[in-house]
Amino acid sequence: MDQLKITYFDVDGGRAEPARLALHIGGIAFEDHRFSFSEFAEVRKATPLSQVPTLQVNDVQVTQSGAITRYVGKLSGLYPEDAFQALLCDEIMDGVEDASIKLGVTFGLTGDDLKNARNDLVVSVFPKYLRWLQKQLESHGGEFFAASSLTIADLKVFVFIRGLNSGHLDHVPTNLVETVAPKLNEHMQRIAQIPAIAQHYSKNSAA
Amino acid sequence: MDQLKITYFDVDGGRAEPARLALHIGGIAFEDHRFSFSEFAEVRKATPLSQVPTLQVNDVQVTQSGAITRYVGKLSGLYPEDAFQALLCDEIMDGVEDASIKLGVTFGLTGDDLKNARNDLVVSVFPKYLRWLQKQLESHGGEFFAASSLTIADLKVFVFIRGLNSGHLDHVPTNLVETVAPKLNEHMQRIAQIPAIAQHYSKNSAA
Repeated sequence: MDQLKITYFDVDGGRAEPARLALHIGGIAFEDHRFSFSEFAEVRKATPLSQVPTLQVNDVQVTQSGAITRYVGKLSGLYPEDAFQALLCDEIMDGVEDASIKLGVTFGLTGDDLKNARNDLVVSVFPKYLRWLQKQLESHGGEFFAASSLTIADLKVFVFIRGLNSGHLDHVPTNLVETVAPKLNEHMQRIAQIPAIAQHYSKNSAA
Repeated sequence: MDQLKITYFDVDGGRAEPARLALHIGGIAFEDHRFSFSEFAEVRKATPLSQVPTLQVNDVQVTQSGAITRYVGKLSGLYPEDAFQALLCDEIMDGVEDASIKLGVTFGLTGDDLKNARNDLVVSVFPKYLRWLQKQLESHGGEFFAASSLTIADLKVFVFIRGLNSGHLDHVPTNLVETVAPKLNEHMQRIAQIPAIAQHYSKNSAA
């Protein structure tokens, strides 16, 4: 059995979270190496592109969250074997990553710069992605995003929607998703009830 | 047989090019729908996220270049079946996309803004990615980026390196790759000699 280790910030969200969730659902043991924001400057020195997350597979350290999530998704049975369904799964993964990148560039901004950038996201950017995601969900059966079963696409959307609703993002109203694409909230609630996910969050919030 | 159609700018590069090359190598027929930059405002109205490329598979239009490239890579036998080799292939794909996004935000800038942004890429950003790519190539055997055989990772890197060398990017010296990571140029030259690729470029440049 390969030794797996995920290195990422000590937050229950962001770019490592879909991979963590996939491994929990698959019942695959891994080292969940978490560090604080203040440790990032040191941690990044030992990563391939000064970025996290990384996945270590035995002695090989791999970068890029999409690649990592897809790999552990395969290990966990959460990635479609059918090429066309995998295409639809990947499309959702990459679309959410697209939106996440647009959010990412606003971190580090402050004051009016932050307010204006976030306002632009809320008014112009996120609604476009949210409506697209809701439309994809509906046209693929309403329950899952691809393959009529749980895949890493569902986990990627779940983590993104959970973040938007969290109230942790300044100037992003917590009712944005409910207003623009309420079926994504219903999807989020269904995913949250998956036993391994419910257990993961109850454990971490109790810690 | 599925009807495939790729919609993208009429350029021999950018985000659709690895998918076009994969389909040519695989000998898979597709409609190569190209449009001029001035037509983009109209074309994007009919795309899922106002973005290109799109891939149409019969009557389904799909967005996101990584997803598209991976799908046609599978059709063309250019995507590893082994999960770990697929991880290494995806890591390269996503890493190059990362660098491409950083380049992408400089398009539209002018004057000193463009010069400063491009200079930052040349001094700080691209060398990091180029050295990392060269290191990956070397540690995976020196000839290909994953699976000891041609994959979409090779095509993604090929298109990126070809773009950096092209002289079409203002303030990016055409000897940057040769200076920083010369083995990527050797790789590029090997890939360019693949008959389907050589034929593709000789046909287009003659048109």
